Amino acid sequence: MVAQTSLFGPVQDDMVLVEAALDRVRAVEYPPLAKMLDHVLGASGKRMRPAITLLAGSFHTYDVAVLVPLATSIEVLHTATLVHDDVIDQAGTRRGRATANALFNNAPSVFLGDFMFAHSAELVARTGNIRVIRLFAQTLMRMATGELQQDISAYDPSKRISDYLARIAGKTASLFAAASEGGAIVSGAPEEWIGALREYGFSLGMAFQVMDDILDFTADESVLGKPAGNDLKEGTLTLPSLLLLEDDSSARNPVRRLFAARRNRDQRLDEALTAIRESDVLPRARRRAEEFAATARASLAPLPDTVARAALTGLVDYVLERDH
Amino acid sequence: MVAQTSLFGPVQDDMVLVEAALDRVRAVEYPPLAKMLDHVLGASGKRMRPAITLLAGSFHTYDVAVLVPLATSIEVLHTATLVHDDVIDQAGTRRGRATANALFNNAPSVFLGDFMFAHSAELVARTGNIRVIRLFAQTLMRMATGELQQDISAYDPSKRISDYLARIAGKTASLFAAASEGGAIVSGAPEEWIGALREYGFSLGMAFQVMDDILDFTADESVLGKPAGNDLKEGTLTLPSLLLLEDDSSARNPVRRLFAARRNRDQRLDEALTAIRESDVLPRARRRAEEFAATARASLAPLPDTVARAALTGLVDYVLERDH
Repeated sequence: MVAQTSLFGPVQDDMVLVEAALDRVRAVEYPPLAKMLDHVLGASGKRMRPAITLLAGSFHTYDVAVLVPLATSIEVLHTATLVHDDVIDQAGTRRGRATANALFNNAPSVFLGDFMFAHSAELVARTGNIRVIRLFAQTLMRMATGELQQDISAYDPSKRISDYLARIAGKTASLFAAASEGGAIVSGAPEEWIGALREYGFSLGMAFQVMDDILDFTADESVLGKPAGNDLKEGTLTLPSLLLLEDDSSARNPVRRLFAARRNRDQRLDEALTAIRESDVLPRARRRAEEFAATARASLAPLPDTVARAALTGLVDYVLERDH
Repeated sequence: MVAQTSLFGPVQDDMVLVEAALDRVRAVEYPPLAKMLDHVLGASGKRMRPAITLLAGSFHTYDVAVLVPLATSIEVLHTATLVHDDVIDQAGTRRGRATANALFNNAPSVFLGDFMFAHSAELVARTGNIRVIRLFAQTLMRMATGELQQDISAYDPSKRISDYLARIAGKTASLFAAASEGGAIVSGAPEEWIGALREYGFSLGMAFQVMDDILDFTADESVLGKPAGNDLKEGTLTLPSLLLLEDDSSARNPVRRLFAARRNRDQRLDEALTAIRESDVLPRARRRAEEFAATARASLAPLPDTVARAALTGLVDYVLERDH
């Protein structure tokens, strides 16, 4: 926890308020639901998104009475999308623990996700800020569209890097953007700062997802907390595999061969993973993440030079350095 | 459509505005999503819930600029829950048409439902009314809990009528209540009228669901638009089967025998359906629906005696008379 103390800088102490609010989300009357909420909200994630909300809100009127419900709402919404993702992917583990669908089956997990979407909407409504309530709803629309694009484009080698970028913008970056922009809005920050923080969150989210997709190829399974090489196995083309497809459009491309394979799929998967790990596509993907990270850092320029700004810059470094 | 013209009374013409707003919900950029939205929102339902919102809003300041987004939001939320239900139940038909999951598969249907939840939240935010936004979010929390209770209690003959009533209160009546209460709130009606309309919507919703559950046993499949006897087949105990269980707690009870059956399940299902259809449990369930209907009618007493009130009373009659 030492790393996190410095990671979230001046808002580290107030993250305790977010955890307490998350505990209250888990306190429902119906015992099976309480058990499921305990499981998915107790799986201590990094809580990056709510921390960003608090940090973004610290440049103007820092009021925990509105910032904490908003930050909590963002984390609940994020976790709800993970619950539905894991149902769809039939994922068995996440963050090193069994997924909700593995423990409680698919049907209850779909309704668990629905409940959490609703609860996150209830939390954001407590801010009393219509602009941020609408931003929140529009963000979930973008996220669901991004998830849908990912699912529908699976196993389709004709997809391009531009499709990938549009998809992760919806699926991931839109929520980072809303976390950051929302904090700025409820703090009453001037429009220029709101725009700067939206751009920061969006670019950080893009860098985060590109790095996440690289880690799926490179990370140690025990550190990752889920099986490595999973994206390609599921037919999800991410930046490294798309770069490999772009480099060699022949039928001999190992990713193309994997998607075309009727037999020996495990062997074809191993060949494709090896090709990606041994080629230059991973460092090239990383450079793309670094470009997004640079944009995130630069977007903070209009903001006052505070410890919160330093913490937001530190989060950019963290996203590039993390190993899971 | 002649019946509907009189059914919705003074707000019939404004329902065109709700349909137009639903058309705008379908107008999204991503073609696969647009196609799915066209399918599920185009399946012309009865639109009872949005009509109730407009009728409830007509007792005070009737402003279509807030009532139409709210009414549309209610219908989109309702349809989203049907989309997720059909995924969970693996249902093939609904309202006489193929379900989203049958046409587009499970994964896209889960994200379609998520998108629609988000869009309904966006629509309700357009009212600018924090109270109604929170009511809306809390309603979805109740609905998801009710759906979860239904799923978790499937095939459990120890469940009681009180469990059933709590479950349909969450799953169905809470949305009718929100449709009615929400219309009253945004119209600026006095608290007494708001409470009366909430009670009306809740009781109407209870009557509606009890009748719906009776129709699952009695209706002609071609009229119902989905297979008859489906609830029991899925292990869902509704009022008629719970009454039969209450009457005879022995192991010879045909519902108990069905749930215990390892073989000959089709035959056991037929026996249970026949037992329910030939006993007095269907008329007894109907009397329960009539009691809820009577409460709904009585709850309108504090409201002015307008054509809208007559239309709300007419909806109660319709719920008891409908054959699908």
